[in-house]
Amino acid sequence: MNYTAQIKVMPLKDLLDPQGKAVLGGLHNLGMKPIADVRIGKHIDLQINAESKEEALQIATEAATKLLANQVMEIFEVAIL
Amino acid sequence: MNYTAQIKVMPLKDLLDPQGKAVLGGLHNLGMKPIADVRIGKHIDLQINAESKEEALQIATEAATKLLANQVMEIFEVAIL
Repeated sequence: MNYTAQIKVMPLKDLLDPQGKAVLGGLHNLGMKPIADVRIGKHIDLQINAESKEEALQIATEAATKLLANQVMEIFEVAIL
Repeated sequence: MNYTAQIKVMPLKDLLDPQGKAVLGGLHNLGMKPIADVRIGKHIDLQINAESKEEALQIATEAATKLLANQVMEIFEVAIL
């Protein structure tokens, strides 16, 4: 069966996010002062052929651990639809 | 009040996603053949000072429209937590 896995990869809370800070500056320049902070990460959709939802989750987690996220600097969350 | 907006920005379905194709090749090289397709977009968290959830949603949608997403090539979804 075909499953869709959604993986969210975000910079760790304690680390500076220069891309987010730059976008925050851009938004303030556009006059959007109510926005207090911006953090930017990746959103990855995987199509996975698996026997069960559990197997799909295991494959997606392996993909995130081995390639998609750098766990020194990033945290990831996996959800199977 | 402080609201967190999550914005997901993904390449349009009909467009090629070269970054996703490259990652798919990398995953196959790692032996993860069950993964059939990869698409990569951005995940953006905003901290917004707003009176109500509706106002926060409106501000986040304006930010996505004006700066965060290029609607010629990308589609976005906004959720307020």
